[in-house]
Amino acid sequence: MISRKFRKIVFGGDYNPEQFPKKIWEEDMRLFQLAGIDIATLNVFSWSLNQQDEETYQFDWLDEVMDMLHANGVQVCMGTSTAAHPAWMAKKYPDVLTVTSDGKKRNYGRRHNSCPHSPTFRHFAGIMARKLAERYKNHPALLLWHVNNEIGNRCYCNNCEKAFRDWLKKRYGTLELLNEAWYTRFWGHSFFDWDEIVLPSALSEGLSGGNSDQTAFQGITLDYYRFNSDSWLDCYLIEYNAIKAEIPDAIVTTNFQGNGTYKPLDYFKWAPHLDIAALDIYTENHTPESYMALRYDLMRGLKDGAPFMLMEQSPSVINWKTVNPVKRPDVMRLRSYQAVARGAESIMFFQLRRSLGAYEKFHGAVIDHAGHEHTRVFKECAELGQELQQLGDRLLDSRLKSRIAILFDWDNWWAVELGGGPSAHIKYLDQIQKYYDAFYENHIQVDFIHVDTELSKYDLVLAPLLYMVKPGYAQKLEHFVANGGTFVTSFYSGIVNENDLVTPGGYPGELRKLLGIWVEEIDPLFPDQRNGMVMKQGFGKLQASYECGLVCEIVHLEGAETLAEFDRDFYRGSPCVTYHHFGKGEAWYAATDPSREFMQQWIKALCERKGISQLYEAPPGVEVTQREKDGDRFTFVMNHTEQIQKMNVGRSVQKELLSGLSISGDIELEPKSILILQA
Amino acid sequence: MISRKFRKIVFGGDYNPEQFPKKIWEEDMRLFQLAGIDIATLNVFSWSLNQQDEETYQFDWLDEVMDMLHANGVQVCMGTSTAAHPAWMAKKYPDVLTVTSDGKKRNYGRRHNSCPHSPTFRHFAGIMARKLAERYKNHPALLLWHVNNEIGNRCYCNNCEKAFRDWLKKRYGTLELLNEAWYTRFWGHSFFDWDEIVLPSALSEGLSGGNSDQTAFQGITLDYYRFNSDSWLDCYLIEYNAIKAEIPDAIVTTNFQGNGTYKPLDYFKWAPHLDIAALDIYTENHTPESYMALRYDLMRGLKDGAPFMLMEQSPSVINWKTVNPVKRPDVMRLRSYQAVARGAESIMFFQLRRSLGAYEKFHGAVIDHAGHEHTRVFKECAELGQELQQLGDRLLDSRLKSRIAILFDWDNWWAVELGGGPSAHIKYLDQIQKYYDAFYENHIQVDFIHVDTELSKYDLVLAPLLYMVKPGYAQKLEHFVANGGTFVTSFYSGIVNENDLVTPGGYPGELRKLLGIWVEEIDPLFPDQRNGMVMKQGFGKLQASYECGLVCEIVHLEGAETLAEFDRDFYRGSPCVTYHHFGKGEAWYAATDPSREFMQQWIKALCERKGISQLYEAPPGVEVTQREKDGDRFTFVMNHTEQIQKMNVGRSVQKELLSGLSISGDIELEPKSILILQA
Amino acid sequence: MISRKFRKIVFGGDYNPEQFPKKIWEEDMRLFQLAGIDIATLNVFSWSLNQQDEETYQFDWLDEVMDMLHANGVQVCMGTSTAAHPAWMAKKYPDVLTVTSDGKKRNYGRRHNSCPHSPTFRHFAGIMARKLAERYKNHPALLLWHVNNEIGNRCYCNNCEKAFRDWLKKRYGTLELLNEAWYTRFWGHSFFDWDEIVLPSALSEGLSGGNSDQTAFQGITLDYYRFNSDSWLDCYLIEYNAIKAEIPDAIVTTNFQGNGTYKPLDYFKWAPHLDIAALDIYTENHTPESYMALRYDLMRGLKDGAPFMLMEQSPSVINWKTVNPVKRPDVMRLRSYQAVARGAESIMFFQLRRSLGAYEKFHGAVIDHAGHEHTRVFKECAELGQELQQLGDRLLDSRLKSRIAILFDWDNWWAVELGGGPSAHIKYLDQIQKYYDAFYENHIQVDFIHVDTELSKYDLVLAPLLYMVKPGYAQKLEHFVANGGTFVTSFYSGIVNENDLVTPGGYPGELRKLLGIWVEEIDPLFPDQRNGMVMKQGFGKLQASYECGLVCEIVHLEGAETLAEFDRDFYRGSPCVTYHHFGKGEAWYAATDPSREFMQQWIKALCERKGISQLYEAPPGVEVTQREKDGDRFTFVMNHTEQIQKMNVGRSVQKELLSGLSISGDIELEPKSILILQA
Repeated sequence: MISRKFRKIVFGGDYNPEQFPKKIWEEDMRLFQLAGIDIATLNVFSWSLNQQDEETYQFDWLDEVMDMLHANGVQVCMGTSTAAHPAWMAKKYPDVLTVTSDGKKRNYGRRHNSCPHSPTFRHFAGIMARKLAERYKNHPALLLWHVNNEIGNRCYCNNCEKAFRDWLKKRYGTLELLNEAWYTRFWGHSFFDWDEIVLPSALSEGLSGGNSDQTAFQGITLDYYRFNSDSWLDCYLIEYNAIKAEIPDAIVTTNFQGNGTYKPLDYFKWAPHLDIAALDIYTENHTPESYMALRYDLMRGLKDGAPFMLMEQSPSVINWKTVNPVKRPDVMRLRSYQAVARGAESIMFFQLRRSLGAYEKFHGAVIDHAGHEHTRVFKECAELGQELQQLGDRLLDSRLKSRIAILFDWDNWWAVELGGGPSAHIKYLDQIQKYYDAFYENHIQVDFIHVDTELSKYDLVLAPLLYMVKPGYAQKLEHFVANGGTFVTSFYSGIVNENDLVTPGGYPGELRKLLGIWVEEIDPLFPDQRNGMVMKQGFGKLQASYECGLVCEIVHLEGAETLAEFDRDFYRGSPCVTYHHFGKGEAWYAATDPSREFMQQWIKALCERKGISQLYEAPPGVEVTQREKDGDRFTFVMNHTEQIQKMNVGRSVQKELLSGLSISGDIELEPKSILILQA
Repeated sequence: MISRKFRKIVFGGDYNPEQFPKKIWEEDMRLFQLAGIDIATLNVFSWSLNQQDEETYQFDWLDEVMDMLHANGVQVCMGTSTAAHPAWMAKKYPDVLTVTSDGKKRNYGRRHNSCPHSPTFRHFAGIMARKLAERYKNHPALLLWHVNNEIGNRCYCNNCEKAFRDWLKKRYGTLELLNEAWYTRFWGHSFFDWDEIVLPSALSEGLSGGNSDQTAFQGITLDYYRFNSDSWLDCYLIEYNAIKAEIPDAIVTTNFQGNGTYKPLDYFKWAPHLDIAALDIYTENHTPESYMALRYDLMRGLKDGAPFMLMEQSPSVINWKTVNPVKRPDVMRLRSYQAVARGAESIMFFQLRRSLGAYEKFHGAVIDHAGHEHTRVFKECAELGQELQQLGDRLLDSRLKSRIAILFDWDNWWAVELGGGPSAHIKYLDQIQKYYDAFYENHIQVDFIHVDTELSKYDLVLAPLLYMVKPGYAQKLEHFVANGGTFVTSFYSGIVNENDLVTPGGYPGELRKLLGIWVEEIDPLFPDQRNGMVMKQGFGKLQASYECGLVCEIVHLEGAETLAEFDRDFYRGSPCVTYHHFGKGEAWYAATDPSREFMQQWIKALCERKGISQLYEAPPGVEVTQREKDGDRFTFVMNHTEQIQKMNVGRSVQKELLSGLSISGDIELEPKSILILQA
Repeated sequence: MISRKFRKIVFGGDYNPEQFPKKIWEEDMRLFQLAGIDIATLNVFSWSLNQQDEETYQFDWLDEVMDMLHANGVQVCMGTSTAAHPAWMAKKYPDVLTVTSDGKKRNYGRRHNSCPHSPTFRHFAGIMARKLAERYKNHPALLLWHVNNEIGNRCYCNNCEKAFRDWLKKRYGTLELLNEAWYTRFWGHSFFDWDEIVLPSALSEGLSGGNSDQTAFQGITLDYYRFNSDSWLDCYLIEYNAIKAEIPDAIVTTNFQGNGTYKPLDYFKWAPHLDIAALDIYTENHTPESYMALRYDLMRGLKDGAPFMLMEQSPSVINWKTVNPVKRPDVMRLRSYQAVARGAESIMFFQLRRSLGAYEKFHGAVIDHAGHEHTRVFKECAELGQELQQLGDRLLDSRLKSRIAILFDWDNWWAVELGGGPSAHIKYLDQIQKYYDAFYENHIQVDFIHVDTELSKYDLVLAPLLYMVKPGYAQKLEHFVANGGTFVTSFYSGIVNENDLVTPGGYPGELRKLLGIWVEEIDPLFPDQRNGMVMKQGFGKLQASYECGLVCEIVHLEGAETLAEFDRDFYRGSPCVTYHHFGKGEAWYAATDPSREFMQQWIKALCERKGISQLYEAPPGVEVTQREKDGDRFTFVMNHTEQIQKMNVGRSVQKELLSGLSISGDIELEPKSILILQA
């Protein structure tokens, strides 16, 4: 296992000593020691410092920092410095600059500013990665590699346009197949020469400006999204391969942005090329904990359950929202453990020392502008650092187990939100979160899977809003259910194939046989509209009726049975939740967006039916997970509320790892507290 | 009459067989038969299919479709396929691409994408129209021609700029007259050379971005709007003339967009060049019926009362709003008859078969993705199709009669909303709709007229918000009133001439003599502000007081008398509604925007004063119209509500055409039902 | 004193006779006489009229107008006509056109349309100013000069970019110092060649589009703002110097826009180059009077208390808001006197006669489109004109005195709103207004000062939200307090130096010693959030508790004492208002944004502690100021409310200048009335 190179859950974060005079570096070393910091991410934004012109490279400053860190017991996560190109490069080789969706060539500035098809960028980024790998491959401080930073942007330049045509040639081979996939007979769009194809931008197919996904040709835009994700993966691989050429056993990764759900990059397609998955997580005080939980579980799912890195979080404030309040006491610690509880093997911050200038000078840091250890934030970090040292390697490589899987698919996400459908309020992440939350609130952990994941190891598979059904996936689901599995999906599913072309013959298309229904009409509701759900039979502890909204579909049964039906409108009495006995299993369909109450109780009943029970019975606001290794079970119990919570952790005595106490039976959880119980 | 070529109210819509394999075509023929479909609009977006490069034309597919339709009793509305240029054309001749108001050259994409002054577009569009006319002039399926599609866009390219200068030379002759008309002494804008003139865009005179009408020079922008409308009319005429050269008696039209009130094109100026007016109507479930009623009446008014075509509507959902709910049962039928009730002689849908890909795949269609006849929507369409067959030619060329006219003027609409006035909430369509609604709610039908319409055939002429008074129009109105007519206008009228130059000497300028008032000040109200109206004398069944808003003007009487006065603010007690005895007639003025209640009762009283009575006394939500022909009167009674409505249709027995029953006296109308009574 | 050239408070405004035929000019003269108008601003937008091509100048029309005005006793404020370049110039020399922040080259149009670094603009503007000065230097009508008009815009063209680099070379000398000031080690921004530097635009460092201040590099953007303000000052000086070369004793000014708080121009840096400060004031009916009061006081402060000109206001409506209601009766007069009450020596309108065409034709004017004197607005103007004639020179050069100063600093304003801090709701003008209002509501007048103002003449100095502390200013404040002064500042102060680089070591940085506190954390609140303030000791008439919001800071006392502490959240009980005995004085700190109630009572108590009392005890809505000259005190009492207000003006009898009555003791103020009491 790659992550076994870690000796414990590493603790540290981004460190930019190049912004400070050297006398500060020594003070930093003292403070790192105090805080138990043992990892520093270096060299993320120092391209212009490392390479002042086309010929001249200098890494003396980096040598010095590496040596100093090593001398102080701090390992290094080595950035490749390619996340922002130097000003001289933009001036000399303007192809590094991107073009916006509405055709504006950017000037030099900001970061994440390179075109993914700039020959200049690719050339110099590869050289830089190679030079760094050559220089530091034997340095004792080096732990792992961090390529670029929060990779991703969309460019609409001529180089990208040419590359898009090449990508399409590879994908389709002939224009005939491309014209078919894109349905170009519509609006007379047939292409007779590859060079007639232009990028789908705000100036071509875009329908409402560059920031929106609304497009006249969903197929073209969908392919551009795939292409753009692949383009950046290529750039990542240039650096990845340069490093591996020098250091075959290097651990190489990059930090995923957007809290791990960054729409432009298909992280499932990227994951095989990362030695360990890593994400940055930036949330607000009022962000619900299940929001983060989902993203950690998704990161774990990227590499089939392997641990991941929490590469960045803020110890307190962020700086880019309209209002950026401080993190309340104990919240940073609790939310850090939440990541560990779901598979993280690092707790890292942006940033170790707060900048004095430019955009992020008011972003939180372990060491504040005050510069000393006597701040609340530093003290909280230092306490956590000590605890992680005491925990040692105990949790490393332990796994979370689940008999339940939720499918997550970037292509589907892209396609379902490209516009022109029943309602722009139908959002993939909302639906995934809603189904996820039903498990979260029941203290039942789930895995996130991708379309290639083998289903047989699961009892329950969910694919909410499965608008796009890829080739063979319907058969895969049928096989899973026929062999006893339970499958759950929801409205607006089975609509299109992988090219966003409708499967004719009646919705839900390829899923119709499995679900035993025909969906005749899809009636979206306005945001303040609701319909009612009336239960037609008992199921678990479901009540007699619930509210629902967003979408109501008119469903005809073709073998399925009705759990609930609509209560209002001209389709009153028609089914809104159905299930279909299919082989040895069952296929469920929610033809609407039910209330959270229904979701929680329905999912609970579905789990009970499969013999899946919750980890503990715990009050709302208390989160429970379990990591396992070598027969040991580590149960995390986290009280996210501001009140004392009571629960029962069972009769057998367990050791609580942070306090060292032995615990059993009824317990009281302090506000914002965490227990790690070992059994 | 052109429309006499129709043997009945035609029923059908847009048909794009080129998107489907031929085996589907045969199924379509079967389904068309089932649905009583007898017209199909073809070839709207198949330019790239018909012309794969500059030299090669091929229409085999179209031949085959035409023959097949003919064999199945379906006539053809022949599109000219010029609504979206081919990709190869954009690549080879970029002048076909438009430039946005903020100066961005578009890339190939979307539809309605050609520059109206592109030599390439004009050249190839003309050829295409000619070739089609040559090929199909004797085809038995051919019924009429449909040029381009929903014509219109604004382009800011150099070709348009040059053409604008030529257009201005024709309009003004000399720069002296142009400078005067544009008031260029303001902000030092004098032009000394025609080439100094640039298009009024977001980069020149625009004040708040390209999507807004706010401009620094209303005169320039107004002329650009006229120019742009004329430019597209020229493009239309290129195709129109090419067809007529081959087929002198062809029926040629194009489908007007924006529900017939598409601001950029002056449809009154276009109307003489259409053999029959045609509009597309796309509304929402909650759109009030009087909204459509107004638009149908306007279409009828375009050609002085001649019937028009409903060229497109959706059988159920649309796809471009944020939320697109299905049409409720019976609504499509009822709203289709509403069009007929106001002069339509076609009921046509976009689209006959639902696309499988691209932007409109979720737009409603007669034949859904399910592909069969067993859907609610298909069944409703088929029932309507049968009914229309039974109705036969009975209603063809019957007319609606009215003694009331409402002036509608595109120049006035443009000018009043170009910004810089008392309130941006003063909207022309709002005011027209409000006056129209007062008649609608009284079940009194009106004609829409343009400035050249002869007034003597009317008893009552309304010109709400007549901000711009064109040369001679004040005299025309004076003549009308002096001879006994009643004229009604409202606040912010008589302000400018045809160049948006204020008529000095006191508002309402040229209308002052007729109205017998001087408006000293115009005080706009914020949206949530109201003033009160207090009646100074009895009139019809008017109450003692009402609310008003939007604008309050300070009016001085110069011969007029006061019906009502303001109740609040420093102008409390000054007149808010006046009337002036002028010759044998009366001229009324509303110096504010009264409540709907006032409007309905005031208009009713005005009608009664002229001896104009309503068709029937009917409850709210029931719409009544009457078409007449050869001594027959066809009265349409439509219950748009969800409840049963009671009314009395008079003592004499009438035949109800849809049921065949004889009807008289008190009746009950089912929800969403319609009666067509023949007397 | 420059302003002594005025014989009275001048009354008039912008006059554009070039828009009208000459027969109207004569009527204007008659109406000016009626209205007591004695000043007309000419030639503001007549560049194209004066110079029809590169070679040809003609001023005959202006000669004629000047002579006619002189013959009618009207003096001239001579515009230089450079506020909008001619169309021919834009065509021939496109460098006069600006480029937007997102890189769009503008076309000819609008006004204020010249690039400040266009060689063409600078060249021709200088010639024009010289020609005008040559021609009119001895004209008896000439009173003063008005350069350009409402100067200011931001341009991003190549000429500006080059000039920016030159400006930077002057400011920093070396790239090393520039890199340090801009903190370019962040995000790898180091510059190795001056030509690598690009303008901070929406295409380079901008973070959210061209209209926002959000930038990735605050230091770069801050310097661009300084550069742009300086660039326009250079343009102004080109014309200023051309005039002075001909007429050494000319009074030269320009009219400041944005109600005197136009963010892009540092008016304190401009003020020394204006012979008299002048502003345009455009507000709405609902604008609070203290809003205007602050701006007048700021204008007075620009030139250390010297009188200023009210160069433009509307006699009634404006035309660019969404809704533009008329000014209510008596409001124009009252608000005109408000300007006088705070130092204005002119009451001038835009515009004397209303245009008939283009954008401003619905902007209010003394002479309306009606063209005669029988309008409410004309009559109100004429009455005011008569009153001002009667007042004569009595008030000229009288001064307002104050022992209180509020610091206003454009650099600080720019820096604090460049983004990336605790809350985007922290707005400099809001905070300045809030502190100002506390004095306004207590009827205590204040001076606005800049960072170079000598502090020793004040007892109380306030610098709210002093985010940026410029070199030496902390020492200046320490000296002021040590010698007995009272200083007040508030949250988020002392954070950065003049380059927006954080002062390390703990907030409030350089102010920490003076204030005796350390601010550990800055916790912004959402707009609807509040905390409470609990008083820890009595002070004046302060209550036991108040509400506060926006920001709560966690303050540690380092010598200061606590007036109030927070009531809620984890920092409950920590100080929110502190004071520090420092030498003979006190330094106060508000670590939050208190309620208006607290502000008013706290400021009142602070004033009482310094022995500063209010001018009169007056009810809310009554404004009181005092101008003094040669031993005379002129007290202005203005009732802005719609009700009669009662107050006592003291036992000694004073003469009321407008009525001529003698007044003392209890009085009643009519709604919207004003008294000018002489004592």
